Parts: sequence; structure tokens; C-alpha cells
Amino acid sequence: MTDAAQLTARLIQCPSVTPEEGGALVLLRDLLADAGFEVTRVDRNGTPNLFARWGAKGAKTFGFNGHTDVVPPGPLGSWTHPPFSGHLEDGVIWGRGATDMKSGVAAFVAAAVDFVTETPPDGAVILTVTGDEEGPGRDGTVALLDWMTANGERMDVCVVGEPSNPNTFGEMMKIGRRGSMNVHVTAKGVQGHAAYPHRAKNPLHALTRYLNDLIAAPLDEGTEHFDPSGLQIVTIDTGNPASNVIPEKAEAVVNIRFNDAHSSASLTKDLTERAAKISAETAVEITLDVHVSGESFLTQPGPFVDLVRGVVREETGIDPVLSTSGGTSDARFVKDHCPVVEFGLVGLYMHQVDERVPAQQVNDLKRVYQKMLERYFA
Amino acid sequence: MTDAAQLTARLIQCPSVTPEEGGALVLLRDLLADAGFEVTRVDRNGTPNLFARWGAKGAKTFGFNGHTDVVPPGPLGSWTHPPFSGHLEDGVIWGRGATDMKSGVAAFVAAAVDFVTETPPDGAVILTVTGDEEGPGRDGTVALLDWMTANGERMDVCVVGEPSNPNTFGEMMKIGRRGSMNVHVTAKGVQGHAAYPHRAKNPLHALTRYLNDLIAAPLDEGTEHFDPSGLQIVTIDTGNPASNVIPEKAEAVVNIRFNDAHSSASLTKDLTERAAKISAETAVEITLDVHVSGESFLTQPGPFVDLVRGVVREETGIDPVLSTSGGTSDARFVKDHCPVVEFGLVGLYMHQVDERVPAQQVNDLKRVYQKMLERYFA
Repeated sequence: MTDAAQLTARLIQCPSVTPEEGGALVLLRDLLADAGFEVTRVDRNGTPNLFARWGAKGAKTFGFNGHTDVVPPGPLGSWTHPPFSGHLEDGVIWGRGATDMKSGVAAFVAAAVDFVTETPPDGAVILTVTGDEEGPGRDGTVALLDWMTANGERMDVCVVGEPSNPNTFGEMMKIGRRGSMNVHVTAKGVQGHAAYPHRAKNPLHALTRYLNDLIAAPLDEGTEHFDPSGLQIVTIDTGNPASNVIPEKAEAVVNIRFNDAHSSASLTKDLTERAAKISAETAVEITLDVHVSGESFLTQPGPFVDLVRGVVREETGIDPVLSTSGGTSDARFVKDHCPVVEFGLVGLYMHQVDERVPAQQVNDLKRVYQKMLERYFA
Repeated sequence: MTDAAQLTARLIQCPSVTPEEGGALVLLRDLLADAGFEVTRVDRNGTPNLFARWGAKGAKTFGFNGHTDVVPPGPLGSWTHPPFSGHLEDGVIWGRGATDMKSGVAAFVAAAVDFVTETPPDGAVILTVTGDEEGPGRDGTVALLDWMTANGERMDVCVVGEPSNPNTFGEMMKIGRRGSMNVHVTAKGVQGHAAYPHRAKNPLHALTRYLNDLIAAPLDEGTEHFDPSGLQIVTIDTGNPASNVIPEKAEAVVNIRFNDAHSSASLTKDLTERAAKISAETAVEITLDVHVSGESFLTQPGPFVDLVRGVVREETGIDPVLSTSGGTSDARFVKDHCPVVEFGLVGLYMHQVDERVPAQQVNDLKRVYQKMLERYFA
């Protein structure tokens, strides 16, 4: 039987600060190859990635996705135990990546190895592990999925092993995410003397009205599976040092996290129409430059979601909430490949000093994953 | 005969962006000294100022006041002709200061020189020219007046040569001014992730609400001698480069021009109360730092006002309105020294890109000033 907690500690000892491989993928490659997986390094532009399949290409396939890169440890002296020690004490494993997410990778690798060894299925198991989730994310899971498409590899369903539980193991799984976009707003008026505003067009008055309009009412009240969308003004800048001068131009950036009541296109249309209205009333030209980080997505509840939810309920005694909260993850890429959900550990200490995880929880997660595999191929 | 238009162009060629002297006062010093004026540089704390008297100290004295500093030119590429070129084409002089107010200074300097040369009066003419009217104004005309008091110099009446006509030369002279104050607004909240706004306090949302409240309704509808008060947001700044971060702090500056329905104290009280209300609602701390440039004032109609008004009417064919409109000027300091009125050019293009003035209008203004001197000493 593969010990997921011990594997977590060994992975922590690989200093894989993004984008360094640090020995983590080499360790997994050897372990998986020994268990009969066909393993391929799918590096792109220097970013290390690992693809592993047990079973026949084209068979019914269950997939896992995760990452072995970690964020920098921060001030070394602040750690109770060195961040790359994988120190085990009183049942707790210490180190960078203990929750995000070497433990999650260790759990699904251990589950997959034991599953194919103990109860070889009539199907395939694919593991996709990237070294670029904490970095720009351009050559990580995206590269793996591109390579799979080019090589006729396919997962029918996929579980991303990111920490999904806020406080208690089993309380939450994620079935989608809100979208995210940035809107750069430029208001261009006519410069002039502050004492003669009728000869100028103050871009700040138009911009203030516009932004106040955007924050005056919520974008929505939430939808069946999503929290309300949120809009935050993150900067307004003018750079006018002269208090007797009305400036020509002012700029702002608005960040929007949106649910499935919207798309980036519908929001862009709405914001553009509101800008046009205030432009018409003020003769200040308000223009928008929109950058979309990702659309919202949802893996509709159905057989796959029910399978994951059922296993979590049976193994933890808790019926997990189907959530779409939180920041982005590589699920936003996988969702274009196949149905995807996220279930993993409790997300405490992520990105913090003294990141750590109870060893028992890692082994619990391994058991949950192995049960998912058994149920899927039953 | 001194050509006021040509002198305007030469002054524009001095790059005297406040508080730089740029050669402007040196040019005037030489010109006035040649014409028999006693000229003294009255610099204070690095701010350049020029005092010039023709005639005996203590004699009946007509004074002029003006400034040679200018506001920054803004984007150089937007100018049709370079801002410090003094380019003359089709009878129009182009450049920063063409209306505000190198032309006005050129006109009264040329008028004074020709007047004392052609028809030497039984009295004195004093010219006070500062290089700090567009800046903080702490060491400009105030320094000149302080120095005059300390040295027994006195003007009996004074004309400030700021542009006083909105559209047509002769239509308006100014007998008072609205007050002016700047309010620096700081909004301090709690930094956080843009995806989790409930864990942060966005200072930009509170600031936007506050500023929108300030511009939503006029401060008043005007009084007997005064136009309505005005409020302009002149800058909002944050400097947050990260679109996924809610910043901790944001700042703005509001410029207020107020009539005799208000005082700086009553306005400060009102704005502070409004800030406290939004602070209480948003848990974002909004604080105000108020700088008062001047309270409102009025030179009551009487013999001096009648003299200026009569000359303008005779020379332009228009009976000028006695106005208190517009921005602050150094008349707010001179009014504590002697009766003061303002008459000058048409104030189009002040502080704007492509500031320019018809050469003929500058020479017309010179003639009006010279007639005022002749009438005063007749």
C-alpha cells in the first residue's frame, strides 16, 4: 500500500518553487513507471509537466489534475521547521506545499497506484501534473491538454486535487468558478482652469459619475450555483499636481468577478452603454479597454458530480456543498476538455509561513480518491 | 512707442513655468530700467518678484499688478505651435501665457513706459510683477506688498491685468472675487483580494460615493454681486498596479470657488460632516486637509471703479459689467493694500493647449491702460 503522507513529505523535500521542477516530477515519474503507468514529460518553454496513463488509450478514463510547484517560502527564519524539510511531528507534516498541493498530488498518485495494483479496472487512469500553476500558467496544464489533444489522449472526467474545504474535510467540493475581467476606463475631457469649468470638460466628474453608477447597485443577487457577482474599483489615477487646473484625462481600473448571470461580452456591452450615456451627457469621452482572465463555468450537477459527492459523503460523513467560490484554478482549463470538479484538503495555511497538514487527512483524501476510482469503474 | 504684442511674444519665449523665472523678469527689469524706472528684485524663498517705480516715493501713485509665471504646457505634441515659441501667424500670438497673462503684463509695462516717456506725470507709477501666481502664491504678490510696506512704498489704486473678459474685449471688469480653497481628501480602508471584498474595505468605493455626493448638486445659485459657487475635482490618485488587489488608500483634491454665501469655515464644516456620514456607512476613514487660498471679497463701486469703467467704455464702446466672477487672482492680496480692480484681455484658452491671443487685442489693452494713467493724473 502506498503511503500518501510519506509521499507528501518526500515531495516537500523537492524544492520546486515555481517554475523549478526540483526533483518532484522525477520522483513521481519513477513511482508511476514502477506501477505500470506509461509516463511522458510534456515540458513546454522550459516548464516541466508530467503525463501518466495506466490502461489503454481510448478506454473509459478517469483523470486527476494537480501541480507540484509551490510559491516561495518567504522568510526562512519565520518557519518553525524548514520549509523543504517535510518534517513529521505529532502527526503533522510541515513544509511549503503541505496543503497547496503536494499533499493532493500525493493522495491521487497513491490512490491511483494502489487502485490499479489492487483492483485493475477495465479502463484507464490518467494523471496530469504540472509545474506551472503558481506561475503565469501559460505552459502548464494548458500545455498538457494541448499535448493530449495532439496525441489522441482523453480524460472522460477529471478531479482537480486543489484544497477545496474552507475548514472541515468533506464540507465543500467545487463545480465551477466565477469569471474574472479587468476594465481599464479612460475619461478624456478638455483641460482648463478650475475657476472656469464651463470652458473645460472635467473628466473626473464624468468618471466619478460613471464609477458611482457602477457601484450603486449590485450586478446581481447570485444565481442557483453562484455567489453574487462583484465589482471592485481597484485604482483611479490622474497625476495632476496643479489644483487650479482641470486635467484633460483620468483613468481607472475595475475588476469584475462574475457568475453565470453574465458573460464578459454581456458585461462589456452593459458597461459600454452606461459609458456612452454619461459621455453623451457630459461631453467627456469615456472609453473602455477590457481584459478577460476567464469566463465563468459550471460543471452541471449530474452523474459525475453525484459520484464525487456520494463518495465524499460516505467517506467523511458530510454532504459537501457544491460551490463555485474562490479564486481561479487549472479547472478553468480542464473544463474545456471534460467535466471537471475540485475536491481536496482543507485549505488552511496555503501560501503562508508554517504551511502544514495532518498526515491522517492526506491518507483520508487518498482513500476518498481511491473510492472514486472504484465507484467509477464498478 | 513700445510694442506690447512684440513684448508678449518675447515674454512667452521665456520658459517661466511656475516657479521658474525663465528670464521673464530679467527682460522686464532691463526694459523698465532703460525707461527710468527704479527697479528692485524682491525675491523671497527663491520666488522671483519685481518691483518698479517711476516717479517719487510717496507721490500720488497708480499701480499695476500681474504675473509672468505660467502653468505647465501639458502634452507638447498636442500644441499646434510649440508652447514657448511666441509664434506669430495671421495676427495671432501662440504660446503658454499668451492670455494668462504675459500679454497683460506686456500691455501695462508698455503703457507705463510710453506714458512716463511721452507725458511724464506729476506722480508715480508702480508696477508689481510676480513669478508665483500660478503656484502656491505664498512668496509672490504677498512678498511684494510686505516689502513695500516695510520700505514705505504705496499704491493709491491698483489695476490687476488678469484676463477679465469672457468673450469680447471690454465687456467685463472685476471688482471682487470669489474665495478659493483646496480640499485634500484621503480615504483609508483595508487592503485585500479583489475576489474577497467582504474581507477588505475598498477606499475607492467610499471616495467615489463622497465625490459623487459633492458634485451631485450646486453649492448655491449665486448672490447679488456673485456668481454661483463652484466645486471641481482636480485629481484622484491611487497608484495601485495590481488589479486583483483592493488598495488600502486613495486620495483626491477638490478645488472650491465660493461666493459670499459661504466662508471657508462653513464649507469645511459641511464637507467634514458629509465625509463623516460616508465614513460611518462604509467603515472607510475619510479625512480632509483644507488649504484656504482666500476668502471672497468686493471692491465697492466708487470713483476709482468709475474711472476704469469710463475709460473702458470710451475706448471699447462697451460698458463693462462689474463682475466678481472667475478664479482667484492676486487682487485678493492687493485689496488689503489699496482699492483694486481687474481689467485685461479676453480670457479664452487660459491654461489650455494652444493658448493664443490676437496681437491687436494686446495693443488695444495697452492703449486702455495708458488712457487710465492719463485720466488718473489729468
